[in-house]
Amino acid sequence: MSADDAAALVPHGANVGMSGFTGSGHPKAVPTALARRIEQAHARGEQFRIGVWTGASTAPELDGALAKVNGVELRLPYQSDPITRERINAGAMEYVDIHLSHVAQFVWFGFLGHLDVALIEVTAILPDGSLVPSKSIGNNKTWLDQADRIIIEVNSGMSTALQGMHDVYYGTRLPPHRKPIPIIAPGDRIGETTFRCDPAKVIAVVETNAPDRDTSFAASDETSEAIAGHILEFLGHEVRRGRLPPELLPIQSGVGNVANAVMAGLENGPFSGLTAYTEVLQDGMLNLVRSGRMVLASATALSFSADATRQFDRDIENLKTKIVLRTQEISNHPEVIRRLGVIAMNGLIEADIYGNVNSTHIRGTTIMNGIGGSGDFARNAYLSIFMTPSTAKGGSISAIVPMVTHVDHTEHDVQIIVTEHGLADLRGLSPKQRAAVVIGNAAHPSFRPALKDYFDRACRLSPGKHTPHLLDEAFRMVNPLR
Amino acid sequence: MSADDAAALVPHGANVGMSGFTGSGHPKAVPTALARRIEQAHARGEQFRIGVWTGASTAPELDGALAKVNGVELRLPYQSDPITRERINAGAMEYVDIHLSHVAQFVWFGFLGHLDVALIEVTAILPDGSLVPSKSIGNNKTWLDQADRIIIEVNSGMSTALQGMHDVYYGTRLPPHRKPIPIIAPGDRIGETTFRCDPAKVIAVVETNAPDRDTSFAASDETSEAIAGHILEFLGHEVRRGRLPPELLPIQSGVGNVANAVMAGLENGPFSGLTAYTEVLQDGMLNLVRSGRMVLASATALSFSADATRQFDRDIENLKTKIVLRTQEISNHPEVIRRLGVIAMNGLIEADIYGNVNSTHIRGTTIMNGIGGSGDFARNAYLSIFMTPSTAKGGSISAIVPMVTHVDHTEHDVQIIVTEHGLADLRGLSPKQRAAVVIGNAAHPSFRPALKDYFDRACRLSPGKHTPHLLDEAFRMVNPLR
Repeated sequence: MSADDAAALVPHGANVGMSGFTGSGHPKAVPTALARRIEQAHARGEQFRIGVWTGASTAPELDGALAKVNGVELRLPYQSDPITRERINAGAMEYVDIHLSHVAQFVWFGFLGHLDVALIEVTAILPDGSLVPSKSIGNNKTWLDQADRIIIEVNSGMSTALQGMHDVYYGTRLPPHRKPIPIIAPGDRIGETTFRCDPAKVIAVVETNAPDRDTSFAASDETSEAIAGHILEFLGHEVRRGRLPPELLPIQSGVGNVANAVMAGLENGPFSGLTAYTEVLQDGMLNLVRSGRMVLASATALSFSADATRQFDRDIENLKTKIVLRTQEISNHPEVIRRLGVIAMNGLIEADIYGNVNSTHIRGTTIMNGIGGSGDFARNAYLSIFMTPSTAKGGSISAIVPMVTHVDHTEHDVQIIVTEHGLADLRGLSPKQRAAVVIGNAAHPSFRPALKDYFDRACRLSPGKHTPHLLDEAFRMVNPLR
Repeated sequence: MSADDAAALVPHGANVGMSGFTGSGHPKAVPTALARRIEQAHARGEQFRIGVWTGASTAPELDGALAKVNGVELRLPYQSDPITRERINAGAMEYVDIHLSHVAQFVWFGFLGHLDVALIEVTAILPDGSLVPSKSIGNNKTWLDQADRIIIEVNSGMSTALQGMHDVYYGTRLPPHRKPIPIIAPGDRIGETTFRCDPAKVIAVVETNAPDRDTSFAASDETSEAIAGHILEFLGHEVRRGRLPPELLPIQSGVGNVANAVMAGLENGPFSGLTAYTEVLQDGMLNLVRSGRMVLASATALSFSADATRQFDRDIENLKTKIVLRTQEISNHPEVIRRLGVIAMNGLIEADIYGNVNSTHIRGTTIMNGIGGSGDFARNAYLSIFMTPSTAKGGSISAIVPMVTHVDHTEHDVQIIVTEHGLADLRGLSPKQRAAVVIGNAAHPSFRPALKDYFDRACRLSPGKHTPHLLDEAFRMVNPLR
């Protein structure tokens, strides 16, 4: 049926589980049609808002369209849309920011309420009724299993060659009936290549032909190359010390320009036989796979620029032996991440001198995107690396502060902080020892005197000297006295 | 040999891995002898300090004695000793506060430096050279495996009937060679009942006959009984809603009087067939096991009052079928905790209105004990419950504050906050929704107006309204203007 007809089947107040992870695999037509319907309802003075649950971020035609018409009551578990962000920070939309590995099980447990509708993009519907996923899996299996009703978008813009790349695990159970997840290497396949789907629940099938979000990356610059350089030097050092094998351990890489630059660095670095166990496969990692540097990559989503999408689509049959797309509860599973010994590399908004990391909030109050899977990976990693340019806003704001205004990764979970100025290795250090290396190695030189002055005075004046702080002025660097 | 002769084998600068977890199973004689030696060296003007690594907290004759003579350069991963705490907070001792599940693997990985000496209390040395653990296991397996030299204290005060209660897992490997940990129920035995020990590394065997720390508990009071009552009511509600089985799921319980009171509440509650997968088995849980309410308890340490110790010692043979003591990396393993679906119950120092929890610091600067295993359990739990009296210091300080001064458990990891006034169920709530229930249900009524005033003004004046804050005064409740 048409997208409009399908959208008419979603009532006010529904919780809708949509596909979509990092701008890939989201429904392309029904959300926009639903937004039109919501706008019309509002114009008539009727209430119409829904709950939107996804894998992670989507695209303007989903989050943007629905937020623009004020159609979202509550959003989870991750977003990166400018209009959505504005609504949330204006206090007009509720947002629940959840570890990505927690989402599916919280729904299975009944902790997040009832899921009314699943709205899922797929590549194809097979004769037996099973569904070939598109370029992300995310929470789609859970939405299909848990929702009362299902709306399917079949995107003919997705290559049917995708079939066989996915691994949808149907071995999960609720406690006390859980068993070990039988993955012992990043490429292990433990599930099925398609989604099971109860045809009795399907209320609409909508045909689309539309590309994923074009997630393009800034050309790498001196800053991101310097960060990548410090990380590569560090990894080489760890190999020489016998603390990492020559082919490293499976890599997790967060999203964005710096992460992409690190992948580019690996392309030109000394390591081969690389693997990845990560959430999202971006351009840089695709290059590693295509060049043979990386022999296997596991993820839950592909998030490419238009150019990389073309390269990928041309080469799917070959890439299918090297890329596995999994459900989000498995791509981000603490059990698997810890077992494999992942090298986790994630971005941040600010880090403090004691190693606490803020990944989500500006000045403690304004959400940017969300924690995503960074906690799943950082806490359970073999090496937990956080990377950032040392300053923001043209050098006027330091990414290293006395005390972060919001904590997403505690001092207990952060091992390495890297900026273009250097790498602070915090392993085995007490808070005061950490402060010395964070200020000395990672902070921008122009902010070091202020940070050192704060730390020195805190060491003298703090009531407790385990984690010296001056609570009166801990936030003054980000929140000057009015 | 004598404790003094053994202590003479520990040089200045050594890292010493000692047994001991929650006042049980720590070496009773050599640390005190070592403290005397350090004091004498200092009197001669010589440097003498060591690194002290343990399972968790110990007792005055270990942490207290060594801290008193200023003999500890760096301490990890957890402590609760008054003199040690004073030294750390005076800035005279370095302390690294680590998730308990991380410690062993960080040593295996080589992240914490070299371990020179293992100093381990055991119950017996068997003819084949293997060692029968005493009343805690903690990191002892790792210390025995990793240290260059081994000093053994054989404590004849420990009943030889303990043999067979322990489960020492030798299946751990370094990535990329790790396999699933084959525990699917709290009582599964996957290892050996004794420690392997290379006799060539043993440099001393010292005989002792001394009890563990007498960890006695305050008689339960109205406050702790009210907290326990709210938790029991909540668990019953979850069972009725089908979100928990009638016998619940394996319980983890932190240490202290409130945790003990909750166990007493379970003794008189409606649940039977209970199990535990926890760090420490205290008096209250022992009563549950002895009464048959709890059919199986897994832990890494027994931490009893003198009375409970007598009851336990009389009944070991019977209790051996119901209690398993494991290595700390398994008792606290994220993989197992998540698989089993543990109900985690931990204390806190302060929680904020948005659900962030401070477990470790007074006014952001003074360490109390440490994070212990609370992060291992809370992050991976089926239900993550934090409990506290609503006030401290005779009602003058609120345990619920606008913003915690240190974060150990982020908003992403805290589901339930309970005080004697009620229970705040934060599952699926946005930050502002959480604030309403934390203030309304958990805060002490005398502090609610101030918290509500802060929250209301923050909702109006905060630059971002996702997590409304007034950074200028976020800490004013705990840090009034000077």
